[in-house]
Amino acid sequence: MKQLYAGKTKDVFELENGNYLLKFKDDVTGEDGIFDPGANTVGLSIEGAGKAGLKLTQLFFEKLKEKGIPTHYISADVENTTMTVVPATVFGEGLEVICRYRAVGSFLRRYGKYADEAQALNGFVEVTLKDDERQDPPISKDGLAMLGILTNEEYETLKELTREISQVVKDELAKKAIELYDIKLEFGRDANNQILLIDEISGGNMRAYKNGEYIEPLALEKMMLNN
Amino acid sequence: MKQLYAGKTKDVFELENGNYLLKFKDDVTGEDGIFDPGANTVGLSIEGAGKAGLKLTQLFFEKLKEKGIPTHYISADVENTTMTVVPATVFGEGLEVICRYRAVGSFLRRYGKYADEAQALNGFVEVTLKDDERQDPPISKDGLAMLGILTNEEYETLKELTREISQVVKDELAKKAIELYDIKLEFGRDANNQILLIDEISGGNMRAYKNGEYIEPLALEKMMLNN
Repeated sequence: MKQLYAGKTKDVFELENGNYLLKFKDDVTGEDGIFDPGANTVGLSIEGAGKAGLKLTQLFFEKLKEKGIPTHYISADVENTTMTVVPATVFGEGLEVICRYRAVGSFLRRYGKYADEAQALNGFVEVTLKDDERQDPPISKDGLAMLGILTNEEYETLKELTREISQVVKDELAKKAIELYDIKLEFGRDANNQILLIDEISGGNMRAYKNGEYIEPLALEKMMLNN
Repeated sequence: MKQLYAGKTKDVFELENGNYLLKFKDDVTGEDGIFDPGANTVGLSIEGAGKAGLKLTQLFFEKLKEKGIPTHYISADVENTTMTVVPATVFGEGLEVICRYRAVGSFLRRYGKYADEAQALNGFVEVTLKDDERQDPPISKDGLAMLGILTNEEYETLKELTREISQVVKDELAKKAIELYDIKLEFGRDANNQILLIDEISGGNMRAYKNGEYIEPLALEKMMLNN
């Protein structure tokens, strides 16, 4: 089994049959020892973080599979903290697609002149480039097309998938009286050029609130996984 | 004559007949005494800057008038450094619409991972919010619609007008062997809700180069106005 990539929170291996194996780690992103899902550096290691992230990812990916939404997910092995996935290549050097239901975080930092904190945003979708050095800049549909990262048609597919997937997550959270404020997703193309949801969907991908109080990623995972 | 607004580089008055009078000032934006058209503060005063800006604005607006492109321009009085215009209201609290022919400035700061300095961009249009406090953040078509600033239809009109107007300016500069790298424009709605180009088009609105060398706004104005 060949290691292809060592990521901040996951390692990627290639299996004999060509599929990929993702190994979830206990390392979480943050700064100065404080867990921050939006940070670009590994801040600390929390025992059980990898397993909790995988279990929540499994829950959401199984739900998406039921609905026929294309993802890279094949199966999860919770004991070994691994997930088997279809190989996919990212767009450009990686994009994040964000779906927003309420104005918080970078949306509010950019558009605070026109939006109040926590104002409803009705599933607004935006794309940012994965670029630590340049603080993940937002980019428009025209910009993505011009730079050869996404065609206009692919952009529309991505936007539609993002809205569908985010709604599935939102509905799952709502079952526990938790409200999804925003979520970031990653997409790639498989060998047939089909667009798939890739990476994971765990606490670190989203901002969730209960009774107006922000829920930390690990607490969210506990709440979602306790039946 | 009632003063409506005191701007960084222009004052705005209301005329008896309802039109507006723009008084161009010698104040230019910059920081620490250095002229910087992108800066949000008045840095210094340069004698003749207002008159040169008005003369270049007159040149471009007359050209646009010939081509039937809607602008707020009625007439210019160079002696008194004033321009008479049709009243217009801005979108939201003001937008800047940028047309880019080469990758420099904020485009390169944001998208430098995918673009080389001065790479051709083929008239790429993007919109930023006028918001000094938040460093004029870029915003997408969907974002503008969601925040009630521009409808999708208005966005398309703005984009089309921006490309037409920028091409007129580019062609004028090319007559003096000067190359337009990028330009920022402002638009508004008149009393009939028609979309018009507003504000000015002078050296401070654009980045122009000759033989690969950047031309300062005042030098550009001199080069363009010397027949």
